[in-house]
Amino acid sequence: MNVYKPKPVSGFPEWLPEERLIEQQWMDHIRKVFESYGFCSIETPSVEELDVISAKGEVDKEIYVLERLHKEDGDSGKEARLALHFDQTVPLARYVAQHFNDLVFPFKRYQIQRVWRGERPQAGRFREFYQCDIDVINVDALPLHFDAEMPAIIWEVLSGLPGMETEKIQLRVSNRKILLGLLDDIDCDQVEVLRILDKIEKIGEQETLELLQSLSGDISGFAHVLVKLAAIKAINSGELEKKLQDINDEYILSSSSESYVKGVGDLKAILNYLSHLPEGAVVADLSIVRGLDYYTGTVYETVFTDDPGYGSICSGGRYDDLASSYINKKLPGVGISIGFSRLFDRLRQQGNFDISRKSPADILMILPDEEHRETAANAARILRKRNFNVELYHAPQKIKKQLSYAERKGIPYVWFPDLHQVKDMKRQTQAEATPEHWQPEKD
Amino acid sequence: MNVYKPKPVSGFPEWLPEERLIEQQWMDHIRKVFESYGFCSIETPSVEELDVISAKGEVDKEIYVLERLHKEDGDSGKEARLALHFDQTVPLARYVAQHFNDLVFPFKRYQIQRVWRGERPQAGRFREFYQCDIDVINVDALPLHFDAEMPAIIWEVLSGLPGMETEKIQLRVSNRKILLGLLDDIDCDQVEVLRILDKIEKIGEQETLELLQSLSGDISGFAHVLVKLAAIKAINSGELEKKLQDINDEYILSSSSESYVKGVGDLKAILNYLSHLPEGAVVADLSIVRGLDYYTGTVYETVFTDDPGYGSICSGGRYDDLASSYINKKLPGVGISIGFSRLFDRLRQQGNFDISRKSPADILMILPDEEHRETAANAARILRKRNFNVELYHAPQKIKKQLSYAERKGIPYVWFPDLHQVKDMKRQTQAEATPEHWQPEKD
Repeated sequence: MNVYKPKPVSGFPEWLPEERLIEQQWMDHIRKVFESYGFCSIETPSVEELDVISAKGEVDKEIYVLERLHKEDGDSGKEARLALHFDQTVPLARYVAQHFNDLVFPFKRYQIQRVWRGERPQAGRFREFYQCDIDVINVDALPLHFDAEMPAIIWEVLSGLPGMETEKIQLRVSNRKILLGLLDDIDCDQVEVLRILDKIEKIGEQETLELLQSLSGDISGFAHVLVKLAAIKAINSGELEKKLQDINDEYILSSSSESYVKGVGDLKAILNYLSHLPEGAVVADLSIVRGLDYYTGTVYETVFTDDPGYGSICSGGRYDDLASSYINKKLPGVGISIGFSRLFDRLRQQGNFDISRKSPADILMILPDEEHRETAANAARILRKRNFNVELYHAPQKIKKQLSYAERKGIPYVWFPDLHQVKDMKRQTQAEATPEHWQPEKD
Repeated sequence: MNVYKPKPVSGFPEWLPEERLIEQQWMDHIRKVFESYGFCSIETPSVEELDVISAKGEVDKEIYVLERLHKEDGDSGKEARLALHFDQTVPLARYVAQHFNDLVFPFKRYQIQRVWRGERPQAGRFREFYQCDIDVINVDALPLHFDAEMPAIIWEVLSGLPGMETEKIQLRVSNRKILLGLLDDIDCDQVEVLRILDKIEKIGEQETLELLQSLSGDISGFAHVLVKLAAIKAINSGELEKKLQDINDEYILSSSSESYVKGVGDLKAILNYLSHLPEGAVVADLSIVRGLDYYTGTVYETVFTDDPGYGSICSGGRYDDLASSYINKKLPGVGISIGFSRLFDRLRQQGNFDISRKSPADILMILPDEEHRETAANAARILRKRNFNVELYHAPQKIKKQLSYAERKGIPYVWFPDLHQVKDMKRQTQAEATPEHWQPEKD
């Protein structure tokens, strides 16, 4: 027979069983935290109609459209064109609009699914990956409470992931109203100004200042204060207050701007709500802007403090109107998204995972000979009822071979049903046991 | 703004939060059972190269191929064509071949993913759905042990699904070697004979007999014995033995056929292995054939006894050679697959689910006023540490409004942090409680 040797497809990652075990631990943990705050799960189809995706205008994202391989003549035109979703925000907006009357608001949902980007194959760039999103959507108005809940949840999620070095993660929060409020009265290209300020950590304060001063319009007189503002980092509302005051003493901020005042007030309130978190876990960082046409208030980013150039691993913010393309309702929301697969793959490549277990089995039940099959099967059943995962060895082969199988799969305990004994593979100890009462030793 | 009112896309189901909660219970249960037998999880990308899918020859399945919406000129031809997988067997074969050296055999894996069929839109036909598969793959030879493990696992899975009426499920097992062994010496169109015998339950013994007798070849003399065989149903190996003996007394079965003898022996051994299951949960049913070119020994089907016409909800069998299209190894396997979404949707439509809960929250924490925010948040955190899911109400609104929110989301308990009391929404009772020690009453 002809053999077609398969190769990995660029951008479509897959993991070995021992890596997948860790991925499941991550997923379980994320789900547990999301649900512990009362977020419900939804899943949407992998596809949306192209008309839904492009309801706001032309789609600039790289997306995959579907074609049926065995399309019959005369099929085309009748059916709606389908595309794989490239994020979970468009599907959420469509879902909320479509099921509006069946949902209870504020609608708190999480969504853990794959998304697709039809990009050119490129090293390190995923074309299929998991995203873990939480959003809260409400009708007409949305309390600030939820803006503050997001970083608390994300902190709990990220700091509890197996293999994650918690001390290296920092959540950064800002409010776009602060900078935009100040810019409102200034004749300048706001988008361009924000784009420059966003890079302040990378390029430094001096270069930021020079770039701002080179812009046309009235900006150059404000460049100093903007740079000072964007450079602010504060671990609590008191520090934020003080740093803003320092600038104000020098420059007199336009504290008459309603937007500025609201932005500062909201940001301080959020920091106060988060005072139970470890110091420095969440910081106010006024340089955070996040995209330029979507978010309207609070914005979030999450970086590795030892590698900020890697970019944000978890971002989001508040938007005024989620689903106006699909329904005549004002639906403000706030949400945050973890780029799961990229983060997982980073820690995987860094060797942060314990991949010694290749099987979920806690115990390998030895099959000493055919005569003991029923005894062995019965012991396995009793242990399973007690929530242990038990693999019954498949043939009465040499004990050495069975032990080697447990070792190669990383199964931590081996049970000898004929001897009524359990072997601890790590400690290399063996002891009497009954399936009704055995407990593994605590590590 | 222009509003594009979205409609459901035919064949791509999605569920409301209260239905999704049940779907998660199903998934969790299935995973738990699979893992309790030592099966590890893998996931493969949603796509395979079209060359991989068609390595065995032309693809007769309806599949979706991907096209990039914003394809640049000159892109085509360079990249491999990608198609969404239509099952999890082709991806498994490719996975095993590709990672052969990193896997420990026998390789026991489960896979719970979406698959796609690019069919014409049609009522009741899914184009995207979940499949839950388990397979065991080994090198060169595979012990019968695994053929017997499959029905035990599936029985435990199906009988434990919330909303499932266990007494209506029946697993049917046969071995294709039995009928094929008998047909080996007969000049006939085997495929056609099997196709007719497969329908015996639907069309009855008399019509089956007539159809067989109308075939060309030497078949008509054997038609009686084939019909009697295919009509055999036996709940244990003793009954199977006896029923075969009865036929043999009358017709003299060609027990000289090695294949027949092996098939009967294997089937009896499997029934013996399964003697711990409730009587009638698994029956030998010699009419089961399952596809005509794939399985080589044991075959499985699962039907609703009160609606056998609905078709099999969970099927599989043994195959001699999984991955010969991709690797020069003999890799026999045995596997079984649950058509998850179709089964879930059936029970959903039949109203078998308790959909009173629209949220995973166990407790709604009342926010009586802003002064109690920290007290409330702190009580919520303590309860979350104790593994309760707690939603903190988002604004200090009227208590009546907060209670109504809990009711509409089906949250079973409401906590008053100012009163140190908990209200049981079902029993409509209220009692003193501390977040450190509270336990819900058992139902």
